[in-house]
Amino acid sequence: MRLHSLKRLLVGRPLPTAQARHERLSKVTGLAVFASDNLSSVAYATEEILRVLILAGAAALSLAMPIGAAIAGVIGVVIFSYRQTIAAYPQGASDYIVAKDNLGTLAGLTAGSALLIDYTLTVAVSVSAGIAALTSAIPQLFPYRVAFCILAIGIIAVGNLRGVRESGKLFALPSYLFIGGFFALIVVGFIRNAAGNLPAVEPSAAPVTAFQALTAFLVLRAFASGAVALTGIEAVADGVTAFKPPEVKNARTVLLVLGTIMMTLFLGTTALASLMGVVPREEETVVSQMAWQVFGGGALYYYIQTVSMLILILAANTAFADFPRLAFFMSRDGYLPRQFGTRGDRLVFSNGIVILGVSAAALVALFDGSTHALIPLYAVGVFTSFTLSQASMVRRWIGSRPPGWWWRVGLNGAGAATTGLVLVVVAATKFLEGAWIVVVIIGALIIMLFTIKSHYSDVAHQLSLEGYEGPPPMRHTVLVLAGDLHRGVVEALQYAKTLSPDAKAVYVELDPERTRRVEEKWQKHGLGVPLVVLTSPYRSLLGPLLDYIDHLQARDGKHVVTIVIPEFIAARWWQHMLHNQTALLIKGALLFRKNVIVTDVPYHLRH
Amino acid sequence: MRLHSLKRLLVGRPLPTAQARHERLSKVTGLAVFASDNLSSVAYATEEILRVLILAGAAALSLAMPIGAAIAGVIGVVIFSYRQTIAAYPQGASDYIVAKDNLGTLAGLTAGSALLIDYTLTVAVSVSAGIAALTSAIPQLFPYRVAFCILAIGIIAVGNLRGVRESGKLFALPSYLFIGGFFALIVVGFIRNAAGNLPAVEPSAAPVTAFQALTAFLVLRAFASGAVALTGIEAVADGVTAFKPPEVKNARTVLLVLGTIMMTLFLGTTALASLMGVVPREEETVVSQMAWQVFGGGALYYYIQTVSMLILILAANTAFADFPRLAFFMSRDGYLPRQFGTRGDRLVFSNGIVILGVSAAALVALFDGSTHALIPLYAVGVFTSFTLSQASMVRRWIGSRPPGWWWRVGLNGAGAATTGLVLVVVAATKFLEGAWIVVVIIGALIIMLFTIKSHYSDVAHQLSLEGYEGPPPMRHTVLVLAGDLHRGVVEALQYAKTLSPDAKAVYVELDPERTRRVEEKWQKHGLGVPLVVLTSPYRSLLGPLLDYIDHLQARDGKHVVTIVIPEFIAARWWQHMLHNQTALLIKGALLFRKNVIVTDVPYHLRH
Repeated sequence: MRLHSLKRLLVGRPLPTAQARHERLSKVTGLAVFASDNLSSVAYATEEILRVLILAGAAALSLAMPIGAAIAGVIGVVIFSYRQTIAAYPQGASDYIVAKDNLGTLAGLTAGSALLIDYTLTVAVSVSAGIAALTSAIPQLFPYRVAFCILAIGIIAVGNLRGVRESGKLFALPSYLFIGGFFALIVVGFIRNAAGNLPAVEPSAAPVTAFQALTAFLVLRAFASGAVALTGIEAVADGVTAFKPPEVKNARTVLLVLGTIMMTLFLGTTALASLMGVVPREEETVVSQMAWQVFGGGALYYYIQTVSMLILILAANTAFADFPRLAFFMSRDGYLPRQFGTRGDRLVFSNGIVILGVSAAALVALFDGSTHALIPLYAVGVFTSFTLSQASMVRRWIGSRPPGWWWRVGLNGAGAATTGLVLVVVAATKFLEGAWIVVVIIGALIIMLFTIKSHYSDVAHQLSLEGYEGPPPMRHTVLVLAGDLHRGVVEALQYAKTLSPDAKAVYVELDPERTRRVEEKWQKHGLGVPLVVLTSPYRSLLGPLLDYIDHLQARDGKHVVTIVIPEFIAARWWQHMLHNQTALLIKGALLFRKNVIVTDVPYHLRH
Repeated sequence: MRLHSLKRLLVGRPLPTAQARHERLSKVTGLAVFASDNLSSVAYATEEILRVLILAGAAALSLAMPIGAAIAGVIGVVIFSYRQTIAAYPQGASDYIVAKDNLGTLAGLTAGSALLIDYTLTVAVSVSAGIAALTSAIPQLFPYRVAFCILAIGIIAVGNLRGVRESGKLFALPSYLFIGGFFALIVVGFIRNAAGNLPAVEPSAAPVTAFQALTAFLVLRAFASGAVALTGIEAVADGVTAFKPPEVKNARTVLLVLGTIMMTLFLGTTALASLMGVVPREEETVVSQMAWQVFGGGALYYYIQTVSMLILILAANTAFADFPRLAFFMSRDGYLPRQFGTRGDRLVFSNGIVILGVSAAALVALFDGSTHALIPLYAVGVFTSFTLSQASMVRRWIGSRPPGWWWRVGLNGAGAATTGLVLVVVAATKFLEGAWIVVVIIGALIIMLFTIKSHYSDVAHQLSLEGYEGPPPMRHTVLVLAGDLHRGVVEALQYAKTLSPDAKAVYVELDPERTRRVEEKWQKHGLGVPLVVLTSPYRSLLGPLLDYIDHLQARDGKHVVTIVIPEFIAARWWQHMLHNQTALLIKGALLFRKNVIVTDVPYHLRH
């Protein structure tokens, strides 16, 4: 009861099913919800590029801007590619569904597995980066970063268990404050730079020395690291049905607006970092260093850190909407357990939310709350599903050939080729750093999904009524298992007589003297139910009972035996330990036996 | 199934009840079984005296002999006192029963609690001392002593689970080898001493200095430590029924012979230790030091160590016979859970054996396998039950006044006074060293025993047929809970129809479209059972069902509702995770609801 009240307090009262349709997002709240995941990567993508380049010395940092421009180009291609997907899949176009429809089951399950992993990493990476924004501003909190991460994941999970519209409200303000804050940072930065009064970032304590040569491989690695900026783009296409009608139009508009804002902020941040000559440091983020110099510390600096933290932590929210929804799709198709397909009493897919929260918290703890350590795992999943999804669209247009199919093929083909190329770069340059883990897990997940599907199909086949002639005729015997005669047994006898007028009682004799006493009581209180006494030379209760059932069922045909077990229910938990759990024992022994049904008849003790 | 085979291998095949009477001990095997606990203390009692005396310097060690003589005197008194008990209680005279019969329930439960603790400590102390004999001979094993102790406890427990006669066989040889070996040690020691060629024990590495003054308190402490020699004497009286007929005569004879041997060995060992000037050491037992000098190392030394180890480890066996038997008596009287009252399929009280083994192993681990650390806890329980038992006999003779009652009173009175005095000495001198723990636990146990008894009495009263008029008339409704219609549900419908011709099916609507499909299938395959559709605005399965049951039961009188749940049973364990555990959920919710009976109808999947 207490647990139940706690759930109500955290999650809220149940919502009726009829309310489901009204829990939808307007363009303004929708932009905010999807903005968090899309834009928040601006807070760390530039830094990840710089962190790779710095290995070749400070001079190499000047390559950040061209790399950033290349990534912005990929973003542009992917956005136009996904706008087509939204139009083609108004019911919600998860990459899983798109790939499965057009390229077949294996491609679909590959995309699905990649996305499940990706969403989990989105939560882990975003929350870690958000807490990094916090600990950059307040370095004393650095040692407690993992605890803060897990707390943040818990808060988001509970928010999502409350339901989707309330999530929209919760996330709208921070998203817009973030967009405003970063525009201000970039604009003020460029103005101060043009005016010539932008101070250079304080030089790092240790002088920067080159560890590696500036090879093409290193440049590709930097590109692969920055490519995490693209994560979250697919979320809008996946979540079309979360928008208010007209869903497709709203989703396409939101995706375009978001993409434009993202490219602007990402390029602006990267350009400003290059101009200022920011060098990445372990204990302070690049954005924190820039904001400190541009605003000269003070309230605006803390504003940037606060909104960075908020939007990053909330970025995890997209995944908390998408993971359960994808799990629902996959569960509906029979590839994931049924439990992911049922809505909780707040109309959300509670099981998916809980699983995601737990997995992400485990990842954060395992990688010690380090964004940088998680990045190599991140991009493989994202670009796998991107590529499969774009390629699916190409296949679709070629198959259906709608008006203008040739430019549609061109658009999605460019998307597929671009993201495919990025996938190859990411996998090749990050393989030993951790990408291999994701490759292995995707493989394992695909096998698991096929196994689950095959089980469900098999069960459906076994239970199918197709060509079913109805059950064979059955005989039925009711046996009350009595160890004594008391009020509980008498009530069980009364019950057994309503089940069958021929009910019998069975008594397993462990002590002949006791049998005599029971038989005496039976004369008076046995309600006329005949008592069968079974001898038990080895003092086993079960053996003689099983033999007797065998004996009854030995004749031809289907003969169901119902074993009625009188069981008294103690009033307090510790009292249960003082009684033999005979009913439990017998149920366990008979569970896998055909045509035997065990029925407890509880007798409730008063105290 | 595999677990079952392992049990068979360890414990043996089940024995029929009829064989119970033949599993008895002859005088020769009985002496061996009870010898182990009685005599084995000879291996450490002398050492415990010396360990206290040494605190006052090497000179104080000369007091060991008079202290030993005093203890031998107590042994003599107690033996004659207990021989009377055996005669008076031919059915087995546990101190618990004797005290309860003559001094009332509280005294009985105090003695019982004291004995339960005592038996547990017997196992822990004996096994620790046995492994000390091993590690004295092979010092390299000293670091692994706790692991060896736990292994030994496990072996004894399994031996006991196999049954009592086989135990007798197992223990006969080591007991007689031990008696022979110690007689040889003492006799050879005295002869070599008389001949003047007995070398003094090598002096300890560190010179012995006095830490404390030789006060009367220290002497009493040494006496209290040595008094552990008496443990196990009560076991013979407790186990009268384990002897072959004539049980009483055999038990009295065995007790007298045992007592005589014990006094001889204990006094001989103590005297020889004094003559040789043995100083106790941490890493080698006193007996080991003596045997090394007397036999000059070699085969006879290792013989002594081996039989010491064996008899000490086997001493635990007495407790493994007594603890379960006492638990059986207390369970029969309703003070311990019923589970202690049932014999396993090898005719032994399996639950008591398992509980004792686990508790003793925990104690050994907690006290790091140190005999010396456990000793202060040991004697309090023993002498509490001794005193209560002897006092009970006094009360009994005064009450019944049989021929010669006055000398009987004298004998048992002397026993009670002596053991009572020892109890006061033990409790006073060892209180802060650990005796307080035992006092606290005895108190807690007594409260627990009373609580259990009161629960059982209450249950018996609630279930009693005394003045029972029979159950009130009942109405009965059968409801099949259907979430769909498939072969499993059809079989459940068939079953429900045999229970009641008016059986109905209940379907909780979560999705109206699905309802339509189910209703269509119902037309064809529903076996004519009417389908009640319950709406569920909050998607809860349970809420509408409970409301419907409330509605049915709202009318006057007793109305039992049987909920039939079709449940398919998966063929492999992992498949269970892929299905909603609806049946379990509903059973849990209805378990504490009156007049509702839940019946699973299993449908077995083939693969």
